[in-house]
Amino acid sequence: MLEVEVKARVRDAGAFERVLLERGAEFLGERVQEDIYLQHPCRDFSETDEALRLRLCAGRAELTYKGPRVGDVRTKTREEVSVGITADESALELLRKLGFREVARIRKRRRSYRLGGYRVELDEVEGLGSFVEVEAAPESSGEELVSFVCRELGLEESMLETRSYLELYLEG
Amino acid sequence: MLEVEVKARVRDAGAFERVLLERGAEFLGERVQEDIYLQHPCRDFSETDEALRLRLCAGRAELTYKGPRVGDVRTKTREEVSVGITADESALELLRKLGFREVARIRKRRRSYRLGGYRVELDEVEGLGSFVEVEAAPESSGEELVSFVCRELGLEESMLETRSYLELYLEG
Repeated sequence: MLEVEVKARVRDAGAFERVLLERGAEFLGERVQEDIYLQHPCRDFSETDEALRLRLCAGRAELTYKGPRVGDVRTKTREEVSVGITADESALELLRKLGFREVARIRKRRRSYRLGGYRVELDEVEGLGSFVEVEAAPESSGEELVSFVCRELGLEESMLETRSYLELYLEG
Repeated sequence: MLEVEVKARVRDAGAFERVLLERGAEFLGERVQEDIYLQHPCRDFSETDEALRLRLCAGRAELTYKGPRVGDVRTKTREEVSVGITADESALELLRKLGFREVARIRKRRRSYRLGGYRVELDEVEGLGSFVEVEAAPESSGEELVSFVCRELGLEESMLETRSYLELYLEG
């Protein structure tokens, strides 16, 4: 599956959330996610622009592979393959046995909204600050997505962030 | 978790099953399992005596790492770490993205019994024949297990098979 999303730093999360609600966004829920990023045993993911993430959230776990970024440079567009995992603690142990090494744990509080057919995530990332992430609907393009966030969320193209949380964390 | 088991080839599965029932074994069920064995992207599992197996069974999937064999040479004793997977097709795709390569698919019909506190599996393995596998209870030793299978199942120590199904398949 190709994931197409845009991300931008949000200076004032409270004000941003009020804008969302004024525009008629529907609040879907809040949860805390802990993302464990892993380094491959024999491939430098920072060079190949790939990622492997074990996400722990509300007692459930999900393992996700992310391929190199492709397409529209304003968006973060990458192939993504995910599987649900039923035993989160064993998953990390199994990956370690295979030689994968933990490089970062990133915790965030994610508040999800739906607006104009898009899913809008407002993330408060520990140590990094607040960000908004909007994922494209399967049938829409990166172009439509960028135009949606600029028009409806009051963002400008120059504010878009194509670095992943992992990259921002490692640069920080 | 350390898995301790003994395995032996069974010449006549029907006769063996009658012995099991005469000894008072309880039939637990039958299922077909498809085991996909994977090679590591940068470690030769046949040299390190490790294995990674994706098991598909009745619409569910399980990913298992097996460490090198240790301990009593009559038993197959190895560290094992397993996780349940909720999307079996994506699991194989995700592993391929990480560089794991499929080396064999082994299909078997497994009939499970309980006898004397042990779980006894009678496997009919496609292309390999019939085998019995008995796993040690967590508190029992390999010694006790070997003595149980010789006494209760009429097997002899010389009949015990310490090669995995994957090894038997690759040798065959």
